[in-house]
Amino acid sequence: MARFWNVFTLRNLLVLSLAINVSFMLRLVYVTVDIKREHMMAVDRSQREALPMQGAYLSVSSATSSPSSATFPDGDRDRAINLDHGDPTMYERFWQQEGDKATIVIPGWQSMSYFSDIGNLCWFLEPEFARQVLRLHKIVGNAVTENRHIVVGTGSTQLFQAVLYALASQDSEEPVSVVSAAPYYSSYQAITECLKSGLYKWEGDARSFAKEGRFIELVTSPNNPDGFLRDSVLNRSGGVLVHDFAYYWPQYTPITSPADYDIMLFTVSKTTGHAGMRIGWALVKDREIAKRIVKYIELNSIGVSKDSQLRAAKVLKVVCDSCESSSNTTESLFEFAYQLMVERWQNLRVAVKHSGMFSLPEFSPGFCKFTGRIFEPLPAFAWLKCEEPIEDCESFLRSNKILTRGGRHFGVGPQYVRISLLDRDDNFDLFVERLSSIRKDNLYQHMGE
Amino acid sequence: MARFWNVFTLRNLLVLSLAINVSFMLRLVYVTVDIKREHMMAVDRSQREALPMQGAYLSVSSATSSPSSATFPDGDRDRAINLDHGDPTMYERFWQQEGDKATIVIPGWQSMSYFSDIGNLCWFLEPEFARQVLRLHKIVGNAVTENRHIVVGTGSTQLFQAVLYALASQDSEEPVSVVSAAPYYSSYQAITECLKSGLYKWEGDARSFAKEGRFIELVTSPNNPDGFLRDSVLNRSGGVLVHDFAYYWPQYTPITSPADYDIMLFTVSKTTGHAGMRIGWALVKDREIAKRIVKYIELNSIGVSKDSQLRAAKVLKVVCDSCESSSNTTESLFEFAYQLMVERWQNLRVAVKHSGMFSLPEFSPGFCKFTGRIFEPLPAFAWLKCEEPIEDCESFLRSNKILTRGGRHFGVGPQYVRISLLDRDDNFDLFVERLSSIRKDNLYQHMGE
Repeated sequence: MARFWNVFTLRNLLVLSLAINVSFMLRLVYVTVDIKREHMMAVDRSQREALPMQGAYLSVSSATSSPSSATFPDGDRDRAINLDHGDPTMYERFWQQEGDKATIVIPGWQSMSYFSDIGNLCWFLEPEFARQVLRLHKIVGNAVTENRHIVVGTGSTQLFQAVLYALASQDSEEPVSVVSAAPYYSSYQAITECLKSGLYKWEGDARSFAKEGRFIELVTSPNNPDGFLRDSVLNRSGGVLVHDFAYYWPQYTPITSPADYDIMLFTVSKTTGHAGMRIGWALVKDREIAKRIVKYIELNSIGVSKDSQLRAAKVLKVVCDSCESSSNTTESLFEFAYQLMVERWQNLRVAVKHSGMFSLPEFSPGFCKFTGRIFEPLPAFAWLKCEEPIEDCESFLRSNKILTRGGRHFGVGPQYVRISLLDRDDNFDLFVERLSSIRKDNLYQHMGE
Repeated sequence: MARFWNVFTLRNLLVLSLAINVSFMLRLVYVTVDIKREHMMAVDRSQREALPMQGAYLSVSSATSSPSSATFPDGDRDRAINLDHGDPTMYERFWQQEGDKATIVIPGWQSMSYFSDIGNLCWFLEPEFARQVLRLHKIVGNAVTENRHIVVGTGSTQLFQAVLYALASQDSEEPVSVVSAAPYYSSYQAITECLKSGLYKWEGDARSFAKEGRFIELVTSPNNPDGFLRDSVLNRSGGVLVHDFAYYWPQYTPITSPADYDIMLFTVSKTTGHAGMRIGWALVKDREIAKRIVKYIELNSIGVSKDSQLRAAKVLKVVCDSCESSSNTTESLFEFAYQLMVERWQNLRVAVKHSGMFSLPEFSPGFCKFTGRIFEPLPAFAWLKCEEPIEDCESFLRSNKILTRGGRHFGVGPQYVRISLLDRDDNFDLFVERLSSIRKDNLYQHMGE
């Protein structure tokens, strides 16, 4: 009898324990399923054909109810591929592999105040985000962080505007000139001009800039759109340099030395792929300039989403941890992205060669101190040139259902286009396949259409 | 032997199962502890004395390592009370009571793309956020949502700028005039003027505006800073009205009818207390104007944090659920905040009467269709007037360690100040106590200091 109870109790306990197990699992599964369903909906939305274009909206044929599957049916092979924006969705796969390592949980009562760190010059900066930013730069070795102020922004886009505000003089009669060597990032011009500010004025290509007076030179390195490393081109007094290092990460270019400039901009979007967070940061040497950058963000949006800063901190922490891990089974974000970029650039160059209608920039290899590898830059964008007789590369590719951004947006001619290489695998593969199949033989057929 | 194995296997299974349970529990405990620690740190930070002031930074005596407790020691009673900003931290208590109802879980691979809803005119709008916004307006009855476009912004601050951009003409020689009846929200002027835009120009008090040409009139109702319901004061052609309804919620004022205007602005900060999210929304009738508002947000920050939109959706859902719940034990957010505002206004009026040095606006009661109650407005700010011989109310209160925002920021005289009534209980209570103890008897002592 005693033994009977013994076994019975054991059985009971086991059943109870298993039941608890199941309840825990259901809870996790429920959360996961819920999240996955949300994710599927998101993927579904994102994979619809048309994306909003710069300055114009394409009409979308499919309503929200229209089904679309992750594996594209044959009919879907004719869909337009939108590579106009640098939407970094190729990183989704890495974060899916990481499972719940970067999951963030925010209770309803957290982060309600406007303030994050009232003792800090940047009072809306989450301290944990700042810590992980410093840690990441230390690990990668891509920027000097000593004696710098960190200012967080709603993406580096907002920080760029904040920097213009900070560097312009409120008292000056004349607006400060803003220049960048062509081809330059298309948004610089659009943003600088959009409000007709009396503080600053877009003056275009830095190489042809000859005006007197104060100026701001924007130096993007590696450059968006063409991927080349850049230095200031205006070697004269009266100017302030702003360095945009959105792409100075080891998946895109060899890290040769820590960047050491007065104002340096970075963004989570191109570092980890989390564009939807809208988080960027500036490293600023001068305290007064940092205060004015903060002031603009205070006026423009009363600080920066705390939720996104907390999430960015978590994501950067996972990236740092994976870099520091001695285990060979842990693949770091940078290794994942580097391998993917190597593969994509190889496939792209094969396609371009096969087509014979296009050309791409050629890069010199460099030694990356972070990885210890020698490799050629692997830019996030392809700066593609259409060869003659094609005059308008953007229109030509559009007729082939490849949506890109034409050279004129970047201050150069229409024979160039910028193409995002950070899209999801299926889109990238279809793009390469389509590009490869464009041949001189069927060109005239296209042009005659 | 068979039974031995049977029991042994049962025991093994039980141990295994219990171990799995423990691991699940540890995991949950770990997450909770982690979050609680983060929260304690956040509370610790928020309760430090000095908050950044508009346009100036107070030096903070305590470093990040300095301890501070939630119940203030006697020495702490001398601390400065910062009620300059409308930081809505009084809502923290409600959300703590709600426990994990509004907790959000975001896995690392979610919401990575720039895009939220590519079929929508506002392509960065999270559909679930839009759904909850519509649901909340329907429940509260404070705005007409039919045939409106919803545009999400990084707080209503960004939306305000987007609206100026949208309403200004890019082709016009002259900037459009921007006016608002004094006392007006202090940031309107600062924001409108900060970039010296050629598109729009701040022209101050709408009541004294006599200039020719196009104008934008900002109508804040209930008004920030004075809490009165407002209507347009400029009854002439050539103008466009922008309605800021940040405070048109039933904890602050009776909801008499659904607002029905062309451009209406709302913000999560003052609705649920989540200022750190930086989420606002606009309801816009005209499609072309909505498109231009979206365009500005595209240029200014390439959309709005998805993390915060998802969290805002969750928080609004909990608010809607609590309003719709038939259970009497569930207190809705609006009931919680209404009761607190009733109590605070009572205490404040008693203190003002006791002091004899100040006066407050008097409001007429109105019937609230949402609650079915008749009550006097309970504004989020006290618009306090210092009586003679005090000339500069802000300085006077500052000498009493009460930090407020002076009347000049709002386009009126220095005898007025705006005081936030949405701070945490201990700060509010200490403020009322301190205000109450300011008497004519010790006034001259203060002024002689």
